[in-house]
Amino acid sequence: MSLSTPDLTLTLRDESLRWFGRLHSMPETGFEETRTAAFVAEELRGLGLEVIAGIGGTGVVGLLRGRRAPAGARFIGMRAELDALPMQGPVDGTVQTADGPRYHGCGHDGHMATLLTAAAALSRRGDLGCNVAFIFQPAEELLGGAAAMLADGLLERVPMSAIYALHNIPGLPAGSVGVVEGAALASSDEIRVTVRAQGTHGAAPQTGQDAILAAAHFLGLCQQLLTRRTDGRDSAVLSFGQIAGGQAANVLPDRVGIAGSLRCHSEAARAAVHALLADAARSTTAAFGTPVDLAIDPKVPVLVNDPA
Amino acid sequence: MSLSTPDLTLTLRDESLRWFGRLHSMPETGFEETRTAAFVAEELRGLGLEVIAGIGGTGVVGLLRGRRAPAGARFIGMRAELDALPMQGPVDGTVQTADGPRYHGCGHDGHMATLLTAAAALSRRGDLGCNVAFIFQPAEELLGGAAAMLADGLLERVPMSAIYALHNIPGLPAGSVGVVEGAALASSDEIRVTVRAQGTHGAAPQTGQDAILAAAHFLGLCQQLLTRRTDGRDSAVLSFGQIAGGQAANVLPDRVGIAGSLRCHSEAARAAVHALLADAARSTTAAFGTPVDLAIDPKVPVLVNDPA
Repeated sequence: MSLSTPDLTLTLRDESLRWFGRLHSMPETGFEETRTAAFVAEELRGLGLEVIAGIGGTGVVGLLRGRRAPAGARFIGMRAELDALPMQGPVDGTVQTADGPRYHGCGHDGHMATLLTAAAALSRRGDLGCNVAFIFQPAEELLGGAAAMLADGLLERVPMSAIYALHNIPGLPAGSVGVVEGAALASSDEIRVTVRAQGTHGAAPQTGQDAILAAAHFLGLCQQLLTRRTDGRDSAVLSFGQIAGGQAANVLPDRVGIAGSLRCHSEAARAAVHALLADAARSTTAAFGTPVDLAIDPKVPVLVNDPA
Repeated sequence: MSLSTPDLTLTLRDESLRWFGRLHSMPETGFEETRTAAFVAEELRGLGLEVIAGIGGTGVVGLLRGRRAPAGARFIGMRAELDALPMQGPVDGTVQTADGPRYHGCGHDGHMATLLTAAAALSRRGDLGCNVAFIFQPAEELLGGAAAMLADGLLERVPMSAIYALHNIPGLPAGSVGVVEGAALASSDEIRVTVRAQGTHGAAPQTGQDAILAAAHFLGLCQQLLTRRTDGRDSAVLSFGQIAGGQAANVLPDRVGIAGSLRCHSEAARAAVHALLADAARSTTAAFGTPVDLAIDPKVPVLVNDPA
């Protein structure tokens, strides 16, 4: 009797929970996932898979060749992430390191256990008609791990026809899977703004420039332009999480720094917001006489699911 | 032959420059003017004056009784300040201390030399028809020295009918004296604002509050209310010199701190600005849901010259 893949998966429940427990207890941050990577590689080898380790830094790929796969067939990729977050979680699962706490707060431990379970289930099928690559990517949280694997020749070393990925969403009922057609995850850009000024005494603001008021104007203007100059049907979220300037209550400082992040669900909206940020900077300079240095660091593009 | 007081003053030119040079070379900050106070007291004693030292901390008062003053006549007070600033000046005159540089950047060295010169000139007059108190006040820059002398019983120990003070203004031509009737120097209040929020992920601002955007709104609103709700003929300058909040570009922080100062030339304008600051805080809370803690520390009132 041959079990279907879902049935096979059910038989792996205990093994799957063991993997989750082990991975949950060894959280490591991006590009430092050496214990995690070694554990994953060992488990993949234990399933009889060929393993590529150390790709893109700490990345690991397990290769499963289907017995009935056509000769020369490309692989189907499935991807999980190795890294945890530098954060304090509930006591269970948090590891204290010299650099502070580590915790799998984004659920990559679950992703890895899921992918190991899929590898185990598929490796037990004698009738597999395709080749499958199980990709364990480093540094997802740093937004640099996928690029590192690609730069290290992943697609040349493992020719793939498609790569699948998933993310746990605790808000969905257990057993449910959600699929979105089109834009699924937002782009992410980091934005750094420096408002420069000739600082002066607070009693005589007209003898210099007010970088703090200019920064405040910039922040408000950005949100106004966001609702006026992007298509209301688009999704764009611009948040500034950091601001700092000045040392004394009555002295206008010579610079204010602001840092923020932008997330969009279309590249058109993203380009529109980049343009309005530049306009807001120019407008602030025109009004307050304060040069506004704007640096946009594009981290990741919009994730668009293939409609097919 | 008896010289007039202005003529007497001219004969004291060398002595006056010596006093200035010595005082310029020993800058000390508020309530720490021990060397300065000792020097001033010694010079006053050298002029034959009775000296009260250590009043209001480091304050010094020299008492000159006019030979022709009526019995029981009150004193006429003249006041200078002892303290320097914690700042780096040109190399000449700057003293490096463990707590950083000290410099007579506000010209109190000149005020003290002027007052010592007046004391010397008047003490040489045999026909002086009044009593004069030469008041050397500590901690003018900290805005607390005058209050300290009053609290230490200055007016009870030295009954005075009036007190005169002056401030150098390098912008005036040499030899000129400017006198303003009515409000001469602004009030000074320190303002501390804390915008509190439920911090949240920058990608989902609606799940918390944006303290940085709320602070930006508050800053802009304050300047708008200043031009709309105070009498345009009044003088009020509101400057915020310090802002800080947040640790990461993509996390909305749970608080933003702002510090500023307010200067007004009338108590009516001052009260109006205090009221509009409170309204701006309330309005910001209403719009963004962020509690805004507002603390106004009234430092000194408006200095109003007696029209008489």
